[in-house]
Amino acid sequence: MHVPDLDRAERIGMPEAVLCEPKTDEQLAVVLRDLLSAGRPTLCTRLPADRLASLPVDLVEALDHDPASRTATLHGPLATRVGSVAVVAAGTSDHGVAAEAAATLRFSGVDTQLIVDVGVAALWRLEARLDEIRAADVVIVVAGMDAALVSVLGGMIANPVIAVPTSVGYGVAADGMSALHSSLASCAQGIAVMNIDNGFGAACAALRILALAHPS
Amino acid sequence: MHVPDLDRAERIGMPEAVLCEPKTDEQLAVVLRDLLSAGRPTLCTRLPADRLASLPVDLVEALDHDPASRTATLHGPLATRVGSVAVVAAGTSDHGVAAEAAATLRFSGVDTQLIVDVGVAALWRLEARLDEIRAADVVIVVAGMDAALVSVLGGMIANPVIAVPTSVGYGVAADGMSALHSSLASCAQGIAVMNIDNGFGAACAALRILALAHPS
Amino acid sequence: MHVPDLDRAERIGMPEAVLCEPKTDEQLAVVLRDLLSAGRPTLCTRLPADRLASLPVDLVEALDHDPASRTATLHGPLATRVGSVAVVAAGTSDHGVAAEAAATLRFSGVDTQLIVDVGVAALWRLEARLDEIRAADVVIVVAGMDAALVSVLGGMIANPVIAVPTSVGYGVAADGMSALHSSLASCAQGIAVMNIDNGFGAACAALRILALAHPS
Amino acid sequence: MHVPDLDRAERIGMPEAVLCEPKTDEQLAVVLRDLLSAGRPTLCTRLPADRLASLPVDLVEALDHDPASRTATLHGPLATRVGSVAVVAAGTSDHGVAAEAAATLRFSGVDTQLIVDVGVAALWRLEARLDEIRAADVVIVVAGMDAALVSVLGGMIANPVIAVPTSVGYGVAADGMSALHSSLASCAQGIAVMNIDNGFGAACAALRILALAHPS
Amino acid sequence: MHVPDLDRAERIGMPEAVLCEPKTDEQLAVVLRDLLSAGRPTLCTRLPADRLASLPVDLVEALDHDPASRTATLHGPLATRVGSVAVVAAGTSDHGVAAEAAATLRFSGVDTQLIVDVGVAALWRLEARLDEIRAADVVIVVAGMDAALVSVLGGMIANPVIAVPTSVGYGVAADGMSALHSSLASCAQGIAVMNIDNGFGAACAALRILALAHPS
Amino acid sequence: MHVPDLDRAERIGMPEAVLCEPKTDEQLAVVLRDLLSAGRPTLCTRLPADRLASLPVDLVEALDHDPASRTATLHGPLATRVGSVAVVAAGTSDHGVAAEAAATLRFSGVDTQLIVDVGVAALWRLEARLDEIRAADVVIVVAGMDAALVSVLGGMIANPVIAVPTSVGYGVAADGMSALHSSLASCAQGIAVMNIDNGFGAACAALRILALAHPS
Amino acid sequence: MHVPDLDRAERIGMPEAVLCEPKTDEQLAVVLRDLLSAGRPTLCTRLPADRLASLPVDLVEALDHDPASRTATLHGPLATRVGSVAVVAAGTSDHGVAAEAAATLRFSGVDTQLIVDVGVAALWRLEARLDEIRAADVVIVVAGMDAALVSVLGGMIANPVIAVPTSVGYGVAADGMSALHSSLASCAQGIAVMNIDNGFGAACAALRILALAHPS
Amino acid sequence: MHVPDLDRAERIGMPEAVLCEPKTDEQLAVVLRDLLSAGRPTLCTRLPADRLASLPVDLVEALDHDPASRTATLHGPLATRVGSVAVVAAGTSDHGVAAEAAATLRFSGVDTQLIVDVGVAALWRLEARLDEIRAADVVIVVAGMDAALVSVLGGMIANPVIAVPTSVGYGVAADGMSALHSSLASCAQGIAVMNIDNGFGAACAALRILALAHPS
Repeated sequence: MHVPDLDRAERIGMPEAVLCEPKTDEQLAVVLRDLLSAGRPTLCTRLPADRLASLPVDLVEALDHDPASRTATLHGPLATRVGSVAVVAAGTSDHGVAAEAAATLRFSGVDTQLIVDVGVAALWRLEARLDEIRAADVVIVVAGMDAALVSVLGGMIANPVIAVPTSVGYGVAADGMSALHSSLASCAQGIAVMNIDNGFGAACAALRILALAHPS
Repeated sequence: MHVPDLDRAERIGMPEAVLCEPKTDEQLAVVLRDLLSAGRPTLCTRLPADRLASLPVDLVEALDHDPASRTATLHGPLATRVGSVAVVAAGTSDHGVAAEAAATLRFSGVDTQLIVDVGVAALWRLEARLDEIRAADVVIVVAGMDAALVSVLGGMIANPVIAVPTSVGYGVAADGMSALHSSLASCAQGIAVMNIDNGFGAACAALRILALAHPS
Repeated sequence: MHVPDLDRAERIGMPEAVLCEPKTDEQLAVVLRDLLSAGRPTLCTRLPADRLASLPVDLVEALDHDPASRTATLHGPLATRVGSVAVVAAGTSDHGVAAEAAATLRFSGVDTQLIVDVGVAALWRLEARLDEIRAADVVIVVAGMDAALVSVLGGMIANPVIAVPTSVGYGVAADGMSALHSSLASCAQGIAVMNIDNGFGAACAALRILALAHPS
Repeated sequence: MHVPDLDRAERIGMPEAVLCEPKTDEQLAVVLRDLLSAGRPTLCTRLPADRLASLPVDLVEALDHDPASRTATLHGPLATRVGSVAVVAAGTSDHGVAAEAAATLRFSGVDTQLIVDVGVAALWRLEARLDEIRAADVVIVVAGMDAALVSVLGGMIANPVIAVPTSVGYGVAADGMSALHSSLASCAQGIAVMNIDNGFGAACAALRILALAHPS
Repeated sequence: MHVPDLDRAERIGMPEAVLCEPKTDEQLAVVLRDLLSAGRPTLCTRLPADRLASLPVDLVEALDHDPASRTATLHGPLATRVGSVAVVAAGTSDHGVAAEAAATLRFSGVDTQLIVDVGVAALWRLEARLDEIRAADVVIVVAGMDAALVSVLGGMIANPVIAVPTSVGYGVAADGMSALHSSLASCAQGIAVMNIDNGFGAACAALRILALAHPS
Repeated sequence: MHVPDLDRAERIGMPEAVLCEPKTDEQLAVVLRDLLSAGRPTLCTRLPADRLASLPVDLVEALDHDPASRTATLHGPLATRVGSVAVVAAGTSDHGVAAEAAATLRFSGVDTQLIVDVGVAALWRLEARLDEIRAADVVIVVAGMDAALVSVLGGMIANPVIAVPTSVGYGVAADGMSALHSSLASCAQGIAVMNIDNGFGAACAALRILALAHPS
Repeated sequence: MHVPDLDRAERIGMPEAVLCEPKTDEQLAVVLRDLLSAGRPTLCTRLPADRLASLPVDLVEALDHDPASRTATLHGPLATRVGSVAVVAAGTSDHGVAAEAAATLRFSGVDTQLIVDVGVAALWRLEARLDEIRAADVVIVVAGMDAALVSVLGGMIANPVIAVPTSVGYGVAADGMSALHSSLASCAQGIAVMNIDNGFGAACAALRILALAHPS
Repeated sequence: MHVPDLDRAERIGMPEAVLCEPKTDEQLAVVLRDLLSAGRPTLCTRLPADRLASLPVDLVEALDHDPASRTATLHGPLATRVGSVAVVAAGTSDHGVAAEAAATLRFSGVDTQLIVDVGVAALWRLEARLDEIRAADVVIVVAGMDAALVSVLGGMIANPVIAVPTSVGYGVAADGMSALHSSLASCAQGIAVMNIDNGFGAACAALRILALAHPS
């Protein structure tokens, strides 16, 4: 049985979340029904549309589902918070992970800009958005393959930067390791990195920083 | 020739730094003499005592060297800044990397606490220091082997947490990959991770956050 | 043809078991029918519900199947033995592997406690179960991702501890290697480790220890 | 500063130990002098003869050093305990790791048999020692390369078996990964595995089992 | 277009063979129809029953298919040759690869014994078949997981031994790398190794040896 | 004995070269004396100053050694050719590999520009050199760590681009794999990649292109 | 939204291309409809027949699809260019990647020869095509498994050579890494390498060279 | 203590051998003195000249040392046997491993040809030696980097072929894995492979084949 962790928000400031992918259909239905009954605002991640369809109909109706980010919310969103985040993605194929980060932040009440298709193969597009990016409190950069956007943007801005490597691509890029290692070895100083495809985690790291910068 | 990047501080807020390890003795001496002449505050990293001894004597005298962190400073430290960082290390063997992070922060004018020997094999030691850790603006966790301290501490505090895996150990831990992967896969939400042994980078990531939280 | 190894129990004290996954449907049906005819108590592992359905109906009826652990038994369980084991799991997603360990032990006549949802992100839940865990003869810890529970629990108790890393998760955790390496590099002393997802093997290792501690 | 963990023996039953390899000469001397003054029985591991020679002379004199196992003891050994362990090694090159396990056990007061040169390339040698091996409470198997001894011996005996893969060899065997993976994937049931070259850890795992089988 | 390599038999003594798996259905049908028309004896490998069913009906009828080895022959077998091979397999799950080796040899006119279920977990079964194995000119050993059978058998017999690691298993054994590395690092001297699951290649290596030992 | 490959230049247009590193001192002296006697223009690579010193004095005198590139030439350089190459390097630590590429090209009679310290952390430096880079027939990009320069420059210019990843750095970058994979997965189209640290090979690839563009 | 990069051809000379595989059906339809409306010549890669069938019927009709190369074109091909490329493939299973390279070149207006089934197991076939290969401006070599064709052909010709390793095969060859590493470590000098299966990228690298050799 | 395995020759036909590298100086001296006293013909492998110098002078005098192969013999060679082996090596840097294979064979009384510098970058050199190679009973191919020689030669001859990958090279070739995987994935059929740098093992595999082909 899933025991909702009722004081989590007070303790480390993270939203209640359920990672749906590794759970069996039975486990997932039990967890979600508990949370539904408890009336607790909850974010479900890694819940694509076809998985949603396998849930009991009352749960499907209760969930506010977003196919692009493969997330759903119960009793959300949380109250609006001060602070802003820019989620910047290199290519079309990185949208899903970027959308997961954005959905997590919006569920958490944070003003979030999603800025996509600014890969380094066309630098002027990135430069055209720089003012917008610099205006955010925290910047999340989502990039696969060579993850060059992480280093280039990291060298242009002074904001806190959180990199999310993605598993887009094939050959040496297939599992996201090329993007992960490239981000960790970035020549731009002070870039912190999340696990591959972990848009949710990047949003949580941003929430920790926002809580410091804008204490409630 | 090394061209000092004079407007870096204004641009992305990072300290001028020289990574000594991969440079030849000739390259290193040229770079340091340029920086010495320019009168620019500079941090040298990965400069152990025996490497220092191979430099020309005037450079050795000009450098303020710290063997524990294998760093040296020229014309430092920078002006004191508002904000504080706790650098927390699991074991004796992680001290070097933790000291590099602390030396970078102190050179940058940041109030820094170094809290060591609080590995999870003895949880009460960690618990005894929790108030001190929570009081810091940003927490850097330095841990090798299983990096369990990252997850345990990350689940206890709401601060921004930056993990630095270390290459301490042997067998599967020998190159730091076990600690890196453990940190990236942490069950604590919102932990951002640096490259293995990159104490300097963790300090830079903290500086980006401090600049947001305490704008000058 | 599968030749049942009739004197195995006498020789090394392990239960007769069939690993179903790598066998073809034809191979599996032949092996199971042989064991059914021989009247030998047998444990089938890695037999999920949909695979069970592909077997001939007489075999399906003869098997006592448990979907959670993906195991089934023939002519079981074995006689009750002295001794007890606690199977401790970090997250909901580790239940399947933990259940396999517990099913193997129960088939072998061992008193087994399954203690789940005690990951280190919420240490007080683990602490609330410590007395129960310490009361067991042997402790099996099932954990994926960072496997931090292995180190934390290993540092709290004096029992024999057997760690089973799981392949839960994505990115660097996807194949269980992060949890395996973290367990092998644990800062807690004397933790012995099994192959990834090998709940059955952990139960067998516990049986070896119980046979020493409680000789029949 | 190293803080001796004074109640460790009571808590999880492990001997006080210092892993010397990753510490600097300065760190090591400080730790050892603290332990010497405290009069606490201590085991030093990964301390080869040439490293010993770099310590201050008073520490060298106080330590009881064993070059074969690269261990040294202070104020040891601990009181004799009930129970016995057989440490079985495949080849001459595995002696060092086997000796580390044996030295740890003897320091801990355990009756220990060291049985070497019984690799599977000459099975009759192994068979000639089987009675001796079966008579021990716990069996530690130390093997590199293909680690075939782990599987062969594991299939012959009912004792608790702890495998220690070693980094002996070259090519695919160079770092011990072939022996580690072979041990984890052993066809013998219930073999628990330690990190590569971790003779000390295997002894600790044996101590946990002995404490269960022979409670004091 | 596939160009049959008509003088291959004369040149290096290998049978004409088609690796079906990586070819598209269109490519495969074209190649097979060419060979059928040319009346050339041909072995098809990696052609499971369901793939066979996707071929045009005239090809299905012309092929002599064996589901266990996933092979099929056209216009076979080749003329009987002097010499014999024993194909020895550890577990039920290795049968498919062993059967591929045996099917290749039988297609090539070689007297072949398939000896299975002789893994080292039950050594007496292996010992019971030793005379039979020693009587063969060449011995092919097929083993996954720890591949301990390779080392044990290699240390018992003087025959040429060819090892085929298999991708049976899960966790560290999942892709056959544990068995491959174990075979390459075997403590038995003079064991030559093939690619993972390459039963066909092992048969070809045996054919090279038979051609030397029994020149036509 | 080394047999000079006298018609190589005519056949594939590559310079006669000796890779010194893996040869024993004896092998190297024999090879070089043969080439010296034959009067053939030869390039020696991976010959650092201390290795040079171990050669017989007559060979040392005959060689024209360049410590920065760790190369030496005998009877060189070759006749001047039409065409130009720009060798562009990201950081000070990449100079050695870049210098090897430049030395190979200059030995081969090619007009070569070495452009360094233009990493993406300071994009305006790169932009300041773009006209110079675009003016070259072929561009070799030398970069380690994240190799972001490869993608950024590759997206700015239409020239043939050859990337050389370097083994500069530590942690995930230590062996050059992060730079290699990043270069192979570059988002810039049509970037061809060499082995890690292979400055010589990159120069040879450029020579093949120059021979096409400027046939003699 | 996909923003067509209208001045790409002028800037770096690469054709407009859409990598279909990682995009969702929705993303792909939007991108293609934009490009269709804009009337821009476009190449779609990694679009197999079954994926094509999932697109809206008007897009299917507008696309000129080639199943062998899994490419499709919109408003193509581009104007004919001076210059020629030979795409050389080792085995039947490499045809798909070779066809992708050829399709990209033909879309770009380049005269392209596809030369297949010339693997080194039958060297005379390769030798029979050498004149044809040498006559091309640029040679693309497509090879999986051991990629021996790359080294053999590279040692026979003076042309610019671009190697594309493929993921054909099983065991150690399964993911293309054996072919990639073999190509990067080729004993033939000056071979430049692309990511695994990247036929499109190899064509782009050839286009960069052709633009130099035959400026418009 | 090393126990000479006195009946090994009778049992599996392998020469008595001592792998010197992983043994301590003390272990090695004891083993060698035992064998010297026993008057048994013995081959020592991986004993470079500087290691030899660390042995006691009486052992140094008793050993017949060959620096090129890093082997030494005691009381050798064994009686001459019928049969012949060709050891073929690609480059100068592979000589050491090839020499180890040849030294093992000559110690075992086998007529051995060492044929070097026949890499595929200059195929006519290889072709010039083909008759000589075909005349041998068994062919050992020693090759590093891309190991292309293995596939090329394997496709030209019908002899039994044993491949020995070497760890020559840098970057992706540094540890011999590129040559190992290339050899295992060879497109030439029936090539059997040894561990990296294992010239001794290749000779032993050849001895097994010679014993079959030329029974005494």
